[in-house]
Amino acid sequence: MPGDAAQRVWADLERIRAEAPLVHNITNYVVMNTTANALLAIGASPVMAHAVEEVEEMAGIARSLVLNIGTLSPVWVEAMIKAGRRARARGIPVILDPVGAGATHYRTSTVHRLLQEAAPSVIRGNASEIRAVLYAEDATKGVDSTHTAEEALDAARILSGHSHAVVSVSGPADLIVSGRSVIRVANGHPMMPRVTGLGCTAAALIGAFAAVNESPWRAAAHAMAVLGIAGEMAAERSPGPGSLQMHLLDALYTLAEPDIRDRLKMVEE
Amino acid sequence: MPGDAAQRVWADLERIRAEAPLVHNITNYVVMNTTANALLAIGASPVMAHAVEEVEEMAGIARSLVLNIGTLSPVWVEAMIKAGRRARARGIPVILDPVGAGATHYRTSTVHRLLQEAAPSVIRGNASEIRAVLYAEDATKGVDSTHTAEEALDAARILSGHSHAVVSVSGPADLIVSGRSVIRVANGHPMMPRVTGLGCTAAALIGAFAAVNESPWRAAAHAMAVLGIAGEMAAERSPGPGSLQMHLLDALYTLAEPDIRDRLKMVEE
Amino acid sequence: MPGDAAQRVWADLERIRAEAPLVHNITNYVVMNTTANALLAIGASPVMAHAVEEVEEMAGIARSLVLNIGTLSPVWVEAMIKAGRRARARGIPVILDPVGAGATHYRTSTVHRLLQEAAPSVIRGNASEIRAVLYAEDATKGVDSTHTAEEALDAARILSGHSHAVVSVSGPADLIVSGRSVIRVANGHPMMPRVTGLGCTAAALIGAFAAVNESPWRAAAHAMAVLGIAGEMAAERSPGPGSLQMHLLDALYTLAEPDIRDRLKMVEE
Repeated sequence: MPGDAAQRVWADLERIRAEAPLVHNITNYVVMNTTANALLAIGASPVMAHAVEEVEEMAGIARSLVLNIGTLSPVWVEAMIKAGRRARARGIPVILDPVGAGATHYRTSTVHRLLQEAAPSVIRGNASEIRAVLYAEDATKGVDSTHTAEEALDAARILSGHSHAVVSVSGPADLIVSGRSVIRVANGHPMMPRVTGLGCTAAALIGAFAAVNESPWRAAAHAMAVLGIAGEMAAERSPGPGSLQMHLLDALYTLAEPDIRDRLKMVEE
Repeated sequence: MPGDAAQRVWADLERIRAEAPLVHNITNYVVMNTTANALLAIGASPVMAHAVEEVEEMAGIARSLVLNIGTLSPVWVEAMIKAGRRARARGIPVILDPVGAGATHYRTSTVHRLLQEAAPSVIRGNASEIRAVLYAEDATKGVDSTHTAEEALDAARILSGHSHAVVSVSGPADLIVSGRSVIRVANGHPMMPRVTGLGCTAAALIGAFAAVNESPWRAAAHAMAVLGIAGEMAAERSPGPGSLQMHLLDALYTLAEPDIRDRLKMVEE
Repeated sequence: MPGDAAQRVWADLERIRAEAPLVHNITNYVVMNTTANALLAIGASPVMAHAVEEVEEMAGIARSLVLNIGTLSPVWVEAMIKAGRRARARGIPVILDPVGAGATHYRTSTVHRLLQEAAPSVIRGNASEIRAVLYAEDATKGVDSTHTAEEALDAARILSGHSHAVVSVSGPADLIVSGRSVIRVANGHPMMPRVTGLGCTAAALIGAFAAVNESPWRAAAHAMAVLGIAGEMAAERSPGPGSLQMHLLDALYTLAEPDIRDRLKMVEE
């Protein structure tokens, strides 16, 4: 029943607002400000820290860890691995965003290292990235998707099976895959890809939801739904991507139970 | 008299707008854009430069230096020390923002190095950070404050005495402490902590005010008042933190003398 | 005829929106988010990548390369050189933004290395920066301009002659110089310099236009015109620089042919 799904999403959101879980992000330069703001708007407590001198200690006090390779370099990858191992040892969820996987060999090989070393609970990318993570030979065009989410479903299922991670594929309809199980989320708005880093924001929000929901599969779906709903609410008052970005933060902050109940398009298969 | 205080704040703001002092920032990745925009909005001239190859030269032409450890790493700390020494030798004010001090040993020990090497004129943090700078053993939760400003007053007094710096403690009411003297600023809005980096913006604005006011104590208080007042003006038209961030920049830009006179809540003890 | 000029600008914009050219940026931390958003708003496809491990491969799939030294450091400069050589070998346009050239010797000498190694098609800066690139002994004040664009015209002509690059000088009226030929663009708004990084945004947009227009001279002029027009449209509804930044992205996204035809102030000499 939609009502139950909406209640579950709302329950997570209320927990985030009540508990303000600390989400440790090792992410890219482009989105640090906007993902921190999205986490604050939703009620979580973000920290950005990447020095190898401190990431283990920071991952040691966080409730989830978000790794994003958008502007990777060797010392940052080393920090991601250190933090990932610490998170894994503590049993807190790790979210991996393989930005631009497939565009360069360095990105693709880094993703494979992170899959082994950090054992993410959730891998979130667009269709091209998810396919690239599975088929290392596949080339993506920069960081924008050139495959549909549906085309990536098989790849997501295989990757989920291999990695024992939930695989969340962003697209016009998001697919959240755990082994053979799929949740489809059809919320969102076509203008959203014209704001940089909303995919990265999705990964950060999954970090917040995974901190309060023991199922990474449901946490990822709930985060995608909340971001999509906030995006719809924002788009209704936005003539372009500049105002969309601003209204999106406002919507994450003001989001109320009826917004979720009225708008949620989530189907579990 | 409030009128006099408002006149002093306004006089500083007019000087900043007339002189556009160059403020050299070595700050964190999350807030570089937003603190540069706040400095521009208020009429100052920001420059961000962190390479050890150039920081001494840049600090050599700036009128103040802002050091912020929000996303620190060894090469950045080295640059902060080089720039800090140069600023100290030139006698320009140095503002230190110990973001997340106490959260990791690396942050706390870096703050102690910077206190010795850069001899800041002003240390600005939230209550947890200020306490952590004083009591190295105290743990903070990430970068958000878990102590009230009042609880930090004693710590601020002791730290100010030890360091010979002004200590500015951000909170619902800001405390600006110089030895035994305290200015309390009660401006601001509860939504402001939901925008990332407004504490860092406070430190950057102190840099602008300290460039035009010889008293770092008054400069810090005036900056906190102006940020708080602009935050109040912004919050009145903002349903959430996205629009608050935008309106805050507009308010810093349009701030007029009556806004300060009508809203200033500053008490000197 | 103005009509023809407007048609040429519009034709480029339509091609960018239709083809979404991949623009590879190695740029500064302050503006990564805002320049990515400007490129997305105009219809291009930005990628930010700076690791020496991947920049050649990324420049190998991009349609233009934008190099910006705003927050330079040695490993970033090395990456710029590697990417620049690859771009040069492939014959894709390279745009160089010498942010703060003249402020420190490190910046000035880096610009000279990049001129030799990357052979940019377009150099874009304010008057101080362009003069500093030519006269290494000239000092600029931080990253803001202290010379008028007109004063820089001679410098731009000489620099264009020496470097065989188009030189685009930003100011109240922009000058786009190719050898002895000049295009003047008088679009824009006085509030624009109060938003950080709009110069960097200009360089990024030149990257998008140069990807679809074989003449770097016209591409640079068209980009300056579009940014200036969008800035005018944004300023009309903006009380301050916070809202200007937001409305500017909306304007880049919604810009229609009549906006260009009605507002374009471009003169070719």
